[in-house]
Amino acid sequence: MSALEQTTAEIDCVLSKVVATWNHHDVKANAALFTEDADFVNVVGVRMRGRKEIEAQHEKLHRTLMRNSVVSIQQRSLRLLSSDVAVAHVQWEMKGGEKVAGWDVRETRHGIFTYILVRENGRWLITGAHNTDTVAVNLPN
Amino acid sequence: MSALEQTTAEIDCVLSKVVATWNHHDVKANAALFTEDADFVNVVGVRMRGRKEIEAQHEKLHRTLMRNSVVSIQQRSLRLLSSDVAVAHVQWEMKGGEKVAGWDVRETRHGIFTYILVRENGRWLITGAHNTDTVAVNLPN
Repeated sequence: MSALEQTTAEIDCVLSKVVATWNHHDVKANAALFTEDADFVNVVGVRMRGRKEIEAQHEKLHRTLMRNSVVSIQQRSLRLLSSDVAVAHVQWEMKGGEKVAGWDVRETRHGIFTYILVRENGRWLITGAHNTDTVAVNLPN
Repeated sequence: MSALEQTTAEIDCVLSKVVATWNHHDVKANAALFTEDADFVNVVGVRMRGRKEIEAQHEKLHRTLMRNSVVSIQQRSLRLLSSDVAVAHVQWEMKGGEKVAGWDVRETRHGIFTYILVRENGRWLITGAHNTDTVAVNLPN
Protein backbone atom coordinates (compact mmCIF):
# COMPACT_ATOMS: atom_id res chain seq x y z
CA MET A 1 0.00 0.00 0.00
CA SER A 2 1.45 3.38 -1.01
CA ALA A 3 1.63 6.31 1.42
CA LEU A 4 -1.20 8.01 -0.49
CA GLU A 5 -3.41 4.90 -0.32
CA GLN A 6 -2.66 4.64 3.39
CA THR A 7 -3.58 8.30 3.97
CA THR A 8 -6.74 7.96 1.90
CA ALA A 9 -7.78 4.92 3.91
CA GLU A 10 -7.13 6.72 7.20
CA ILE A 11 -9.16 9.77 6.17
CA ASP A 12 -12.00 7.59 4.87
CA CYS A 13 -12.00 5.95 8.25
CA VAL A 14 -12.48 9.35 9.94
CA LEU A 15 -15.34 10.22 7.56
CA SER A 16 -16.99 6.85 8.24
CA LYS A 17 -16.75 7.50 11.97
CA VAL A 18 -18.36 10.93 11.54
CA VAL A 19 -21.37 9.16 10.02
CA ALA A 20 -21.42 6.23 12.45
CA THR A 21 -21.20 8.44 15.56
CA TRP A 22 -23.90 10.76 14.16
CA ASN A 23 -26.27 7.88 13.47
CA HIS A 24 -25.65 6.48 16.96
CA HIS A 25 -26.18 10.02 18.32
CA ASP A 26 -22.93 9.57 20.22
CA VAL A 27 -22.01 13.25 20.41
CA LYS A 28 -18.91 12.75 22.54
CA ALA A 29 -17.39 10.24 20.12
CA ASN A 30 -18.32 12.53 17.23
CA ALA A 31 -16.63 15.55 18.82
CA ALA A 32 -13.52 13.46 19.50
CA LEU A 33 -12.95 13.38 15.73
CA PHE A 34 -12.21 17.13 15.81
CA THR A 35 -9.08 18.99 16.91
CA GLU A 36 -9.27 21.03 20.10
CA ASP A 37 -9.29 24.29 18.06
CA ALA A 38 -11.55 23.12 15.23
CA ASP A 39 -14.05 25.40 13.48
CA PHE A 40 -17.49 24.23 12.42
CA VAL A 41 -19.93 26.24 10.31
CA ASN A 42 -23.36 24.62 10.15
CA VAL A 43 -26.11 24.84 7.51
CA VAL A 44 -27.75 27.90 9.09
CA GLY A 45 -24.45 29.79 9.15
CA VAL A 46 -23.62 29.41 12.82
CA ARG A 47 -19.93 29.11 13.56
CA MET A 48 -18.76 26.98 16.45
CA ARG A 49 -15.22 27.53 17.70
CA GLY A 50 -13.40 24.65 19.32
CA ARG A 51 -14.28 21.04 20.07
CA LYS A 52 -16.09 21.92 23.30
CA GLU A 53 -18.50 24.28 21.57
CA ILE A 54 -19.00 21.81 18.70
CA GLU A 55 -19.89 19.12 21.23
CA ALA A 56 -22.22 21.37 23.26
CA GLN A 57 -24.18 22.52 20.20
CA HIS A 58 -24.52 19.01 18.82
CA GLU A 59 -25.51 17.62 22.18
CA LYS A 60 -28.55 19.92 22.05
CA LEU A 61 -29.35 18.95 18.46
CA HIS A 62 -29.18 15.22 19.12
CA ARG A 63 -31.48 15.56 22.12
CA THR A 64 -34.06 17.36 19.96
CA LEU A 65 -34.56 17.71 16.24
CA MET A 66 -31.75 15.39 15.16
CA ARG A 67 -32.56 12.58 17.63
CA ASN A 68 -33.86 10.26 14.88
CA SER A 69 -31.82 11.56 11.98
CA VAL A 70 -29.80 9.19 9.81
CA VAL A 71 -27.08 10.37 7.45
CA SER A 72 -25.22 8.60 4.69
CA ILE A 73 -22.35 9.52 2.40
CA GLN A 74 -23.31 9.56 -1.27
CA GLN A 75 -19.98 10.63 -2.67
CA ARG A 76 -16.68 11.94 -1.40
CA SER A 77 -13.52 13.37 -2.90
CA LEU A 78 -10.18 14.08 -1.34
CA ARG A 79 -7.20 16.32 -2.01
CA LEU A 80 -3.94 16.36 -0.07
CA LEU A 81 -2.65 19.92 0.43
CA SER A 82 0.52 18.75 2.19
CA SER A 83 1.62 15.52 3.84
CA ASP A 84 -0.37 16.54 6.94
CA VAL A 85 -3.27 18.62 5.61
CA ALA A 86 -6.13 17.41 3.44
CA VAL A 87 -9.47 18.68 2.21
CA ALA A 88 -12.42 16.36 1.70
CA HIS A 89 -15.81 17.10 0.16
CA VAL A 90 -18.69 14.88 1.19
CA GLN A 91 -22.09 14.81 -0.47
CA TRP A 92 -24.54 13.54 2.10
CA GLU A 93 -28.17 12.54 2.47
CA MET A 94 -30.17 12.85 5.68
CA LYS A 95 -33.53 11.39 6.63
CA GLY A 96 -35.50 11.70 9.85
CA GLY A 97 -34.67 15.27 10.87
CA GLU A 98 -37.47 17.17 12.65
CA LYS A 99 -38.98 20.57 11.82
CA VAL A 100 -38.11 23.75 13.66
CA ALA A 101 -39.41 27.33 13.33
CA GLY A 102 -37.44 29.34 10.80
CA TRP A 103 -35.71 26.39 9.22
CA ASP A 104 -37.35 24.38 6.51
CA VAL A 105 -35.92 20.92 7.19
CA ARG A 106 -36.91 18.71 4.29
CA GLU A 107 -37.99 15.07 4.68
CA THR A 108 -34.93 13.93 2.78
CA ARG A 109 -32.11 16.45 2.79
CA HIS A 110 -29.07 16.59 0.55
CA GLY A 111 -26.01 18.70 1.12
CA ILE A 112 -22.29 19.04 0.96
CA PHE A 113 -19.63 19.20 3.64
CA THR A 114 -16.15 20.62 3.25
CA TYR A 115 -13.81 19.02 5.78
CA ILE A 116 -10.29 20.23 6.47
CA LEU A 117 -8.22 17.49 8.08
CA VAL A 118 -4.82 17.61 9.75
CA ARG A 119 -2.54 14.85 10.97
CA GLU A 120 -1.72 15.42 14.64
CA ASN A 121 0.66 12.95 16.29
CA GLY A 122 0.08 10.52 13.47
CA ARG A 123 -3.71 10.70 13.68
CA TRP A 124 -6.02 12.46 11.20
CA LEU A 125 -8.53 14.82 12.81
CA ILE A 126 -11.00 17.36 11.46
CA THR A 127 -9.93 20.96 12.08
CA GLY A 128 -12.51 22.65 9.87
CA ALA A 129 -16.02 21.65 8.80
CA HIS A 130 -18.52 23.64 6.78
CA ASN A 131 -21.92 22.31 5.77
CA THR A 132 -24.60 23.53 3.35
CA ASP A 133 -27.90 22.10 2.15
CA THR A 134 -28.14 21.71 -1.59
CA VAL A 135 -31.35 23.39 -2.73
CA ALA A 136 -32.84 23.72 -6.20
CA VAL A 137 -32.41 27.23 -7.54
CA ASN A 138 -32.87 28.12 -11.21
CA LEU A 139 -30.26 30.76 -11.83
CA PRO A 140 -30.86 32.96 -14.87
CA ASN A 141 -28.65 32.29 -17.88
CA MET B 1 7.76 42.25 10.68
CA SER B 2 7.69 38.60 11.78
CA ALA B 3 7.03 35.77 9.33
CA LEU B 4 3.57 35.35 10.85
CA GLU B 5 2.75 39.04 10.49
CA GLN B 6 3.97 38.91 6.91
CA THR B 7 1.79 35.87 6.14
CA THR B 8 -1.22 37.45 7.84
CA ALA B 9 -0.77 40.61 5.78
CA GLU B 10 -0.46 38.61 2.56
CA ILE B 11 -3.61 36.61 3.27
CA ASP B 12 -5.54 39.73 4.28
CA CYS B 13 -4.52 41.17 0.95
CA VAL B 14 -6.05 38.17 -0.85
CA LEU B 15 -9.28 38.52 1.15
CA SER B 16 -9.44 42.24 0.35
CA LYS B 17 -9.01 41.45 -3.33
CA VAL B 18 -11.85 38.93 -3.17
CA VAL B 19 -14.10 41.75 -1.99
CA ALA B 20 -12.74 44.42 -4.35
CA THR B 21 -13.02 42.22 -7.46
CA TRP B 22 -16.55 41.13 -6.43
CA ASN B 23 -17.69 44.71 -5.97
CA HIS B 24 -16.18 45.70 -9.32
CA HIS B 25 -17.85 42.60 -10.81
CA ASP B 26 -14.49 41.71 -12.32
CA VAL B 27 -15.03 37.96 -12.48
CA LYS B 28 -11.74 37.17 -14.22
CA ALA B 29 -9.68 38.98 -11.57
CA ASN B 30 -11.75 37.29 -8.86
CA ALA B 31 -11.17 33.83 -10.31
CA ALA B 32 -7.44 34.55 -10.57
CA LEU B 33 -7.32 34.49 -6.75
CA PHE B 34 -8.09 30.73 -6.82
CA THR B 35 -5.80 27.81 -7.60
CA GLU B 36 -6.38 25.92 -10.84
CA ASP B 37 -7.88 22.97 -8.90
CA ALA B 38 -9.84 24.98 -6.31
CA ASP B 39 -13.20 23.87 -4.93
CA PHE B 40 -16.04 26.29 -4.26
CA VAL B 41 -19.31 25.42 -2.51
CA ASN B 42 -21.84 28.24 -2.73
CA VAL B 43 -24.75 29.15 -0.44
CA VAL B 44 -27.22 26.91 -2.28
CA GLY B 45 -24.93 23.92 -1.98
CA VAL B 46 -23.59 23.85 -5.51
CA ARG B 47 -20.01 22.69 -5.80
CA MET B 48 -17.78 24.14 -8.49
CA ARG B 49 -14.60 22.24 -9.31
CA GLY B 50 -11.64 24.18 -10.63
CA ARG B 51 -10.97 27.83 -11.41
CA LYS B 52 -12.57 27.61 -14.87
CA GLU B 53 -15.88 26.40 -13.47
CA ILE B 54 -15.75 28.96 -10.64
CA GLU B 55 -15.24 31.71 -13.18
CA ALA B 56 -17.98 30.49 -15.53
CA GLN B 57 -20.59 30.24 -12.74
CA HIS B 58 -19.72 33.65 -11.33
CA GLU B 59 -19.69 35.23 -14.77
CA LYS B 60 -23.38 34.24 -15.06
CA LEU B 61 -24.16 35.54 -11.55
CA HIS B 62 -22.50 38.91 -12.10
CA ARG B 63 -24.39 39.41 -15.38
CA THR B 64 -27.67 38.79 -13.58
CA LEU B 65 -28.72 38.73 -9.93
CA MET B 66 -25.38 39.83 -8.48
CA ARG B 67 -24.76 42.68 -10.97
CA ASN B 68 -25.41 45.39 -8.34
CA SER B 69 -24.36 43.48 -5.24
CA VAL B 70 -21.87 44.96 -2.80
CA VAL B 71 -20.11 42.87 -0.16
CA SER B 72 -18.07 43.87 2.85
CA ILE B 73 -16.06 41.97 5.44
CA GLN B 74 -17.40 42.39 8.96
CA GLN B 75 -14.91 40.15 10.74
CA ARG B 76 -12.25 37.65 9.83
CA SER B 77 -10.08 35.15 11.66
CA LEU B 78 -7.10 33.18 10.50
CA ARG B 79 -5.30 30.00 11.46
CA LEU B 80 -2.11 28.66 9.93
CA LEU B 81 -2.22 24.87 9.51
CA SER B 82 1.33 24.70 8.17
CA SER B 83 3.77 27.21 6.72
CA ASP B 84 1.93 26.96 3.38
CA VAL B 85 -1.67 26.18 4.32
CA ALA B 86 -4.10 28.45 6.16
CA VAL B 87 -7.79 28.59 6.96
CA ALA B 88 -9.67 31.87 7.17
CA HIS B 89 -13.24 32.52 8.29
CA VAL B 90 -14.89 35.65 6.97
CA GLN B 91 -18.18 37.04 8.20
CA TRP B 92 -19.65 39.12 5.38
CA GLU B 93 -22.55 41.41 4.61
CA MET B 94 -24.12 41.82 1.18
CA LYS B 95 -26.51 44.41 -0.14
CA GLY B 96 -28.05 44.80 -3.58
CA GLY B 97 -28.54 41.15 -4.57
CA GLU B 98 -31.62 40.43 -6.71
CA LYS B 99 -34.40 37.89 -6.13
CA VAL B 100 -34.62 34.59 -7.95
CA ALA B 101 -37.21 31.79 -7.88
CA GLY B 102 -36.48 29.22 -5.19
CA TRP B 103 -33.95 31.33 -3.33
CA ASP B 104 -35.02 33.89 -0.79
CA VAL B 105 -32.29 36.52 -1.22
CA ARG B 106 -32.70 39.02 1.60
CA GLU B 107 -32.24 42.77 1.15
CA THR B 108 -29.23 42.69 3.46
CA ARG B 109 -27.60 39.28 3.74
CA HIS B 110 -25.14 38.07 6.30
CA GLY B 111 -23.09 34.93 6.07
CA ILE B 112 -19.83 33.20 6.65
CA PHE B 113 -17.13 31.96 4.31
CA THR B 114 -14.53 29.32 5.08
CA TYR B 115 -11.46 29.84 2.90
CA ILE B 116 -8.62 27.36 2.58
CA LEU B 117 -5.49 29.06 1.30
CA VAL B 118 -2.22 27.61 0.04
CA ARG B 119 1.07 29.24 -0.83
CA GLU B 120 2.04 28.33 -4.39
CA ASN B 121 5.35 29.67 -5.71
CA GLY B 122 5.43 32.19 -2.89
CA ARG B 123 1.91 33.46 -3.56
CA TRP B 124 -1.17 32.79 -1.41
CA LEU B 125 -4.18 31.54 -3.36
CA ILE B 126 -7.57 30.16 -2.38
CA THR B 127 -7.91 26.42 -2.96
CA GLY B 128 -11.18 25.90 -1.11
CA ALA B 129 -14.13 28.19 -0.44
CA HIS B 130 -17.43 27.36 1.22
CA ASN B 131 -20.15 29.92 1.85
CA THR B 132 -23.36 29.88 3.91
CA ASP B 133 -25.98 32.49 4.74
CA THR B 134 -26.51 33.03 8.44
CA VAL B 135 -30.22 32.72 9.16
CA ALA B 136 -32.13 33.07 12.41
CA VAL B 137 -33.25 29.70 13.71
CA ASN B 138 -34.43 29.11 17.24
CA LEU B 139 -33.13 25.70 18.10
CA PRO B 140 -34.87 23.95 20.99
CA ASN B 141 -32.93 23.80 24.25
